[in-house]
Amino acid sequence: MSLIEPRTLKGFRDYLPETMIPRERLMETARRVYRSFGFLPIDTPALEYEEILVGKGGAESDKQLYRFEDHGGRRVALRFDLTVPLARFVAQHHNDLGLPFKRYHIGNVWRGENTQRGRYREFVQCDFDTIGSTSIAVDIETGLVVHELLRAIGFERFEIRVNDRRVLNGVLERAGLAEHAVPVLRALDKLDKIGPEKVAEEMASTAGASAAQARAILELAQASGTNAQVLERVRPLVAGTERGEAGIASLATLLGAMDAAGVPESRLRLDLSIARGLDYYTGTIYETVLSDLPGIGSICSGGRYDDLASLYTKEKLPGIGASLGLDRLLAAMEELGLIDARRASAPLFLAYFDEARLADYQALAMRLRAAGIGVEFYPEPRKLGAQLKYADRRGFRHALIVGEDEWKTGQAQLKDLARQSSAVVPLGAGLVDALARALAE
Amino acid sequence: MSLIEPRTLKGFRDYLPETMIPRERLMETARRVYRSFGFLPIDTPALEYEEILVGKGGAESDKQLYRFEDHGGRRVALRFDLTVPLARFVAQHHNDLGLPFKRYHIGNVWRGENTQRGRYREFVQCDFDTIGSTSIAVDIETGLVVHELLRAIGFERFEIRVNDRRVLNGVLERAGLAEHAVPVLRALDKLDKIGPEKVAEEMASTAGASAAQARAILELAQASGTNAQVLERVRPLVAGTERGEAGIASLATLLGAMDAAGVPESRLRLDLSIARGLDYYTGTIYETVLSDLPGIGSICSGGRYDDLASLYTKEKLPGIGASLGLDRLLAAMEELGLIDARRASAPLFLAYFDEARLADYQALAMRLRAAGIGVEFYPEPRKLGAQLKYADRRGFRHALIVGEDEWKTGQAQLKDLARQSSAVVPLGAGLVDALARALAE
Repeated sequence: MSLIEPRTLKGFRDYLPETMIPRERLMETARRVYRSFGFLPIDTPALEYEEILVGKGGAESDKQLYRFEDHGGRRVALRFDLTVPLARFVAQHHNDLGLPFKRYHIGNVWRGENTQRGRYREFVQCDFDTIGSTSIAVDIETGLVVHELLRAIGFERFEIRVNDRRVLNGVLERAGLAEHAVPVLRALDKLDKIGPEKVAEEMASTAGASAAQARAILELAQASGTNAQVLERVRPLVAGTERGEAGIASLATLLGAMDAAGVPESRLRLDLSIARGLDYYTGTIYETVLSDLPGIGSICSGGRYDDLASLYTKEKLPGIGASLGLDRLLAAMEELGLIDARRASAPLFLAYFDEARLADYQALAMRLRAAGIGVEFYPEPRKLGAQLKYADRRGFRHALIVGEDEWKTGQAQLKDLARQSSAVVPLGAGLVDALARALAE
Repeated sequence: MSLIEPRTLKGFRDYLPETMIPRERLMETARRVYRSFGFLPIDTPALEYEEILVGKGGAESDKQLYRFEDHGGRRVALRFDLTVPLARFVAQHHNDLGLPFKRYHIGNVWRGENTQRGRYREFVQCDFDTIGSTSIAVDIETGLVVHELLRAIGFERFEIRVNDRRVLNGVLERAGLAEHAVPVLRALDKLDKIGPEKVAEEMASTAGASAAQARAILELAQASGTNAQVLERVRPLVAGTERGEAGIASLATLLGAMDAAGVPESRLRLDLSIARGLDYYTGTIYETVLSDLPGIGSICSGGRYDDLASLYTKEKLPGIGASLGLDRLLAAMEELGLIDARRASAPLFLAYFDEARLADYQALAMRLRAAGIGVEFYPEPRKLGAQLKYADRRGFRHALIVGEDEWKTGQAQLKDLARQSSAVVPLGAGLVDALARALAE
């Protein structure tokens, strides 16, 4: 029989332990942070009715949707994000859920897009949202969660950029461009990439903005200084517009509360140029950039919306949320050398020599596990060198050696593979304490 | 615009928090146990080439496979288990992985099967395997992992059933039915459901077994008594067959070591009737039954195989593993009342009254989170009754009340919603200690 070549599809990948261990750690950190703010976990199916998903992310998403006919002749598709399933979920269950409803959702999504460096057709999204409250308290909390996520993962140098869509709308209103918000914002979104001149050109051609109008918008987007200075500079640009003034007031409250809650000013920057999700977000907007690796783009983004699920229910469901780009973050951490290269998942390696003592080895390993010390027991009674080579390759630092002599004397050897040193530990009472001390070093 | 009905596909379901919280807890427990034995996490894509998956689980699996053509005209399918992807994965990466290789994998699989009670078309599998060792040490460890999983999840009353396929093969060899192993085992697998007479009838019609032959096999399958008694009773039935005697010797070693490692005899039963996975398993076989709910079938099953990945590589890869039926287990736990109904994911609810103090509330909540006390902050400054109703519905037991008076006096109220009692706690120094004490009660 001829062999089938073992391979993954283009744009898909296997996670080997050295990548999966830090990935699991990231997900655990995210879950811990979300829970500490009272967010609740949910899950939704990978497959949904095509009509639920199609048209919800725009033409680009539709093109990338994996869709087909199932066994029952239904048109189905794989979810391409966790936001559309959330909208469907809340519309379907909001009577059971109760509002406000705070959920997190960590799950795979699929997009059949052209694969570029670091882009895959299957990736994890890691979202949190608060549905059913328009209170500024939730906007503040969203920013605090983003800050806490990055901090808990281990980053020191990052910048959360915050804006309020209403400020932009106020400026557009004063500039007489309110009807052209979408093309203006689309152009503005490219400011970092193409620079102010090209943005002004695009505004002229797609939104009919005059040079003066484009200048006013760019002035807003490029306002610099401390957050307080930026706020003051922008205030006159929105004066007299209800939305613009509300946006400024909201940003002022938010910045004050984030400061009071311990977010350093260096990590929170008012940036009136960010305009994510052209017609989706309606208030506060967040982006997050790693100071040491700004080129990878925002690794945690989100914002406030007025109406999550208007396609599925007449109930108006406002909310705010954000999404942690887990796989992008993992790639960044690899690049920055923040991934702990230790690959073993238990702290202690137990070598195996004496076949007649197999039951004793197993009992010893279980005794240590019961005391909270994870143990990998090598399954073959091979030579010590071969076993230690395996232990080293797996990233173990500590190996416990119990041979025929050790079983008799009741004294085992604890090897430190990093320091190439060895110590004697008792096999009976005192073993757990001795190991716990050595492993904690 | 007309609304789209929010609904899930037949056979698929949403997980609301009350189900997702215990489900996440189960997965966390499984990960912790797997890691404590040194198993390493991996992940593989949900979508694979159709040729990798088709034909690997038999005709039944093929019929249930979700398959379609992707954007690049490739024939692809959703994985229907985690074993075939493991075989493909190890064949592809074994040089990088090193052997022995111990992995766990928790992930969704999809089967378009007819939906019965408790069966879904998307469900989680939770597998662990050790590849590349034929040592009995690994067979023992696999049983210890199963025992530890169930114990760590919180079960006291369960039975791990163990068998060795070689014992059955020895008996068949002596009975002259070695060529008819598959139909004989298929009939034997139904013993619990249809009884010995119907099994004998089926053996006669599908394997041409005489009444005496069927009796010998049923004698083996129905041997009862202590594990030691069963072993002694069966020994003569395999005498003179190499495989049969090896199977008996292996089971004797395994039972001894499990006993030494602390598995109570009441939880480990030699059951020579179990024959899972007709032509896949070649040695030790495990099944696990909940004593209080045997009707739901085995909730953790597995066994030893000689050659994991023969379809993808010439490298012979023996191994042993098992799979925890996580969703089935969750259903069982619900039925047995083992699910903690508490739905909140943070231990403390913080009420919100005084809008002018919003920043102070947020700072207070962050201070508690930093001290390890999760806090859900209610986002709207509504009446206390409405806020406490929400807290109660969410399953909070403790609510911290800080109103205008409390901010001024520096003394807050801690309400115990279960006991309907209230205590005074200091807002400044001493708050964390006072809360930690109250929450630990």
